[in-house]
Amino acid sequence: MRITLIGSGNVATHFGAALKNAGHHIVQVYSPTYPNAALLAYHIGAEAIDRLEDIDAETDMFIISVKDDAIEGLAQQLSVYQKLTVHTSGATDLKAISQYNKAAGVIYPLQTFSKTREIDFRKVPLCIEGSDEHVHTGLNLLAHTLSLSVFDVNSAQRKILHLAAVFACNFPNNLYAIAQGLLAKHDLDFNLLRPLILETALKVQHNLPAEVQTGPAVRNDEKTMEAHLGLLQYEDGLQALYQTLSQSIIKLDKAYKPDR
Amino acid sequence: MRITLIGSGNVATHFGAALKNAGHHIVQVYSPTYPNAALLAYHIGAEAIDRLEDIDAETDMFIISVKDDAIEGLAQQLSVYQKLTVHTSGATDLKAISQYNKAAGVIYPLQTFSKTREIDFRKVPLCIEGSDEHVHTGLNLLAHTLSLSVFDVNSAQRKILHLAAVFACNFPNNLYAIAQGLLAKHDLDFNLLRPLILETALKVQHNLPAEVQTGPAVRNDEKTMEAHLGLLQYEDGLQALYQTLSQSIIKLDKAYKPDR
Repeated sequence: MRITLIGSGNVATHFGAALKNAGHHIVQVYSPTYPNAALLAYHIGAEAIDRLEDIDAETDMFIISVKDDAIEGLAQQLSVYQKLTVHTSGATDLKAISQYNKAAGVIYPLQTFSKTREIDFRKVPLCIEGSDEHVHTGLNLLAHTLSLSVFDVNSAQRKILHLAAVFACNFPNNLYAIAQGLLAKHDLDFNLLRPLILETALKVQHNLPAEVQTGPAVRNDEKTMEAHLGLLQYEDGLQALYQTLSQSIIKLDKAYKPDR
Repeated sequence: MRITLIGSGNVATHFGAALKNAGHHIVQVYSPTYPNAALLAYHIGAEAIDRLEDIDAETDMFIISVKDDAIEGLAQQLSVYQKLTVHTSGATDLKAISQYNKAAGVIYPLQTFSKTREIDFRKVPLCIEGSDEHVHTGLNLLAHTLSLSVFDVNSAQRKILHLAAVFACNFPNNLYAIAQGLLAKHDLDFNLLRPLILETALKVQHNLPAEVQTGPAVRNDEKTMEAHLGLLQYEDGLQALYQTLSQSIIKLDKAYKPDR
């Protein structure tokens, strides 16, 4: 396919590379900041543009991969071409595009992308939605050229997924940071915790989290929990966080094992 | 070395297998529940006993790997032999053993063990402490036959480590469970989140967590956070948890980037 990338951030960059690897032709990369467009365009053999007036209409598809609040405005401006237009956002409704473009869709890659790490894009779950059956079929075919893991997810479900990703990714990383801070204060090496963090994530690759919950809260080991709270007494806010999350473990465990 | 295992739970089982693989001789496995002792003893070629009176004094070392509140009592009963005696607990002071046994120590394996998953024990960080330099040297040699990752950790530090492990393992798993619950309610497959969970843990294997924090809170994206809180309005307790953890992200980010 001939594809035009609107945006040059983390997601656009990983999408661009995956599209090129799958043999698609990236016609242009647009960014209002020319050097950003140029850098990505260079890597994927496309033309860089920084003005929407310079868009080449000889494209099959626009992929809008920009900040959430800029999607709708761009969808409106691109509607003069009436090409298949999709966004890549978890938190944005299909309507942001479909109200201006007849053939509208979403390809939401559910992964955390960073500049410092390579990602195997074939393992990134792609959540697709189309404004009609024809668009859906096309996006499904395209998504399967990029990833082994393609799911139909509508706009309401996608918002839940985006929220759940905060619980599954952003919040755990904050807890890793708290743990690292506790270690640093006591001259302990963060390498002590890295294998544990990895194993905890590996465990739920083949189990449900509720099945493999461990720790003092799920054992109802009050003595250990009290000792932990004692150690946290001078740590601003961490006692309350410890109690809230311990209660959450106890609550979910009761729901998981209703007979206990 | 000739080693006697006191206990037959998860940690004792993984320790026993690692000791056997490293070429040590497990003399006996003690558990008050004979079938448990017998099962582990069978796997590692040891004798099973369920009465402390049947202990074979021809051993170099006792490894006490039992529930925290049973350690001290066992250490006292085993003190008649005055052999090198260690426990494997993160939350228990060396004193629980050293007050009864001259040669006392700790080998605390910092990992989450389960019956459903194999662990590469050579990658498990072992935290060692000895009652004197002689014991420390011996435990250091022994630990290096089991793992590539051996750290000196005193009793005060070990308690911090045990607490930090709750933040790095037990609490993130609870957040995975919350995310899974949100997905299940909306007919979404947990496989959608598994690669994200794994990547989040992989990211901090070579970075510090504060360096790679992502999500609406660290971007100060209030619109997205409000939308998420709206989605959580009928989820008991989750709005408060979302706000607490978002505030925690914002606080740690300010500490990490003090100029912002």
